[in-house]
Amino acid sequence: MKSPLEIVQTMLQEDAFSNWLGIQVEQIDQGSCTLSMEAHSEMVNGFSILHGGISYALADSALAFASNAYGYQCVSIETSISHIRPAKAGEKLIATATEIHRGKTVGRYEVIVADQHHKTIAHFKGTVHISEKVW
Amino acid sequence: MKSPLEIVQTMLQEDAFSNWLGIQVEQIDQGSCTLSMEAHSEMVNGFSILHGGISYALADSALAFASNAYGYQCVSIETSISHIRPAKAGEKLIATATEIHRGKTVGRYEVIVADQHHKTIAHFKGTVHISEKVW
Amino acid sequence: MKSPLEIVQTMLQEDAFSNWLGIQVEQIDQGSCTLSMEAHSEMVNGFSILHGGISYALADSALAFASNAYGYQCVSIETSISHIRPAKAGEKLIATATEIHRGKTVGRYEVIVADQHHKTIAHFKGTVHISEKVW
Amino acid sequence: MKSPLEIVQTMLQEDAFSNWLGIQVEQIDQGSCTLSMEAHSEMVNGFSILHGGISYALADSALAFASNAYGYQCVSIETSISHIRPAKAGEKLIATATEIHRGKTVGRYEVIVADQHHKTIAHFKGTVHISEKVW
Repeated sequence: MKSPLEIVQTMLQEDAFSNWLGIQVEQIDQGSCTLSMEAHSEMVNGFSILHGGISYALADSALAFASNAYGYQCVSIETSISHIRPAKAGEKLIATATEIHRGKTVGRYEVIVADQHHKTIAHFKGTVHISEKVW
Repeated sequence: MKSPLEIVQTMLQEDAFSNWLGIQVEQIDQGSCTLSMEAHSEMVNGFSILHGGISYALADSALAFASNAYGYQCVSIETSISHIRPAKAGEKLIATATEIHRGKTVGRYEVIVADQHHKTIAHFKGTVHISEKVW
Repeated sequence: MKSPLEIVQTMLQEDAFSNWLGIQVEQIDQGSCTLSMEAHSEMVNGFSILHGGISYALADSALAFASNAYGYQCVSIETSISHIRPAKAGEKLIATATEIHRGKTVGRYEVIVADQHHKTIAHFKGTVHISEKVW
Repeated sequence: MKSPLEIVQTMLQEDAFSNWLGIQVEQIDQGSCTLSMEAHSEMVNGFSILHGGISYALADSALAFASNAYGYQCVSIETSISHIRPAKAGEKLIATATEIHRGKTVGRYEVIVADQHHKTIAHFKGTVHISEKVW
């Protein structure tokens, strides 16, 4: 079976949107993942702050990598995100995914999105369905 | 006070990410909004299907426009999204936001993201904080 | 295979807490269910309004009955509830569950909890895992 | 202003449902709270396991006490709960609420519900609106 890093590299090759975001893999293991990226001026919303879709996408990618790193394909079925502080273009974003619980067919993960000063920007929770398909 | 359409036009002028997505406003009123966009190849994830961050971003923009259309600035505080069916590059996405309830300081909205065949891709729920700042 | 009503009757026989709540089945079918109950003085919280756990429990039972009525055992894996209006002891509560989408292993349902004047008290969304066990 | 313990004692005096549940306050401070209770045979559902409404109610009370302990009245506006493991009648339940973030008008809390063996039964997240009313 592939290693967590090999799985994430395979996923990232096809993951055009994570590449557009400029996502870097800082850490990856079974059930955990840390990603970073820089907020660009193309990523802001009508209030000139980071669009909620960007912090969501970063957290969702961290969820995907942490849950798929066991070697079985996992698909996100239900997620929620609390937007806690605004972020601005130019800031570095760091998403840290940790495992709440992983059963036979369902896994739960928490992802904290923070800025370079360790201030929380968003708090994300995701539930995935674990399939039997091997990476 | 500005009309719903004037508010959305003002918001969209600054909303670089909604512009990158290619969002079109199909309908806008106080508490309701329909947006459309086309899924591009830059928007897929490691499974070669639409990245969850894209359907989230489209739904979040529909939430922002529907809730801000009353003329008072609203900020999303808590959102959840269920990913129901995969979408592919080339498909048209339509997000329809409707109001569940709007009180003095808190509003709740539901957004359905569907494809051109009216098949539901994602089901989104969002809670906003209503400020006293006028657009 | 048992009918929706037979399944719910079987479930209710063992469901001590739904019985404590005084839940009545108003309508039941595959994917839909309407329940009613009366709010009692034992069900209020520290603000002398209905405890959030009561409206949640009523909605969760409606979710359970609507999703199990197909004849396969379903277990709730992820739920969210927005508390919209307070309710008081003496009021009648009506929970109406409808199906958002049902796939092979995952089903999504929405439940509206209202009072006797059709005012929404709570808005609930639930995701269930569909097992292969037959009722 | 009242102390956290005085506020919780005031709230519990009126909180008929928390009393029915047999909730004990193990720890209380501004932004944190630990509650315990014993699961009774009246609290099970149609699968003869703890009804989701009970773990929700326990978590919701922990959220209420942790967020109100600052002295300002807080009302829950949006909550979600993941049911992770089943619990049975006779087991002890412990709910631990911690603060994710507290701003001027909105606070976010996480509550873990575990059994006496420290196994997680449910994972709860709640958002409250902070009013200016003093306890």
